[in-house]
Amino acid sequence: MKLIAVSLAAMLWLAGMVTTVVPRTPQNEWKADSIYTIKIPAGYRDWKLISVAHEAGKLNDLRAILGNDIAVNAYRAGKLPLPDGAIIARLAWAYTPSEENNKAFGNPQSFVAGQPTNVQFSIKDSKKYTLSGGWAYAQFNQGQSINVAVNATCFACHQAVKDRDFVFTKYSH
Amino acid sequence: MKLIAVSLAAMLWLAGMVTTVVPRTPQNEWKADSIYTIKIPAGYRDWKLISVAHEAGKLNDLRAILGNDIAVNAYRAGKLPLPDGAIIARLAWAYTPSEENNKAFGNPQSFVAGQPTNVQFSIKDSKKYTLSGGWAYAQFNQGQSINVAVNATCFACHQAVKDRDFVFTKYSH
Repeated sequence: MKLIAVSLAAMLWLAGMVTTVVPRTPQNEWKADSIYTIKIPAGYRDWKLISVAHEAGKLNDLRAILGNDIAVNAYRAGKLPLPDGAIIARLAWAYTPSEENNKAFGNPQSFVAGQPTNVQFSIKDSKKYTLSGGWAYAQFNQGQSINVAVNATCFACHQAVKDRDFVFTKYSH
Repeated sequence: MKLIAVSLAAMLWLAGMVTTVVPRTPQNEWKADSIYTIKIPAGYRDWKLISVAHEAGKLNDLRAILGNDIAVNAYRAGKLPLPDGAIIARLAWAYTPSEENNKAFGNPQSFVAGQPTNVQFSIKDSKKYTLSGGWAYAQFNQGQSINVAVNATCFACHQAVKDRDFVFTKYSH
């Protein structure tokens, strides 16, 4: 039943149905609480770069993964699990062809960051978020927190990298 | 003749023949000098994010564009031309499919930063680099400066955005 619930959450996420309400079982009750208490961390746009990525498919974005000092210092030192206080910010923008760049390169090869899509945060607190590996997740669209379903589906998906403290992104030197 | 030289430089760049020696005419003589005096700016990996991009084709990379405080403050204030002292760093990594992420997403859609390819810097000094719009350019592969051809071809290509102080990248909010 647990596996089915996780799979369902993952499927909803993959289908982009992020506003769908996940059934409130005891398993995800904590997520409903935690998401409402998470605010956008001050100054995150100034944080250091961890890495970059491109998600094709329905997401179709270019993304930057930034970290606060606690996160970046741990990454650089190769320390896992990340310490309490670490926050990872994932910024994403529409994957946008650049006509200007293509003209300069003489080839239709250049894709740049268009309009921002959303910002996600992974916040480490091993004492507070005990039911989800020490992590809380939040997503903000145009500065507004979106509903509980995202937080539930985040953790389900991050199970794939449980042996790396549930963190997908590796540091890019 | 000038146009032909610029086109030739651009073609060499596009062909990826960055180690080809550009003929030393008076036009690019300064570039030969300047590139040898440019060192990797200290602490650039800690700089703030300006934007991200993906170059397909032969470059086939994911890139992050960072700026020192002078550059980022000017970008955020919408100030052009960028002031002296501004430095833009372009980091690039091999465009690499992530099997791990694809499995989590259930779709072959995820591309991450692989091995680093090279780092380029654009350095603003309107008094020093008078022959190239106030900009000097440098590229480092594995920490080593590469030869003069890159610097010559950089400026040729950046002519495309002369009206934005020769800067391609726009700030991503």
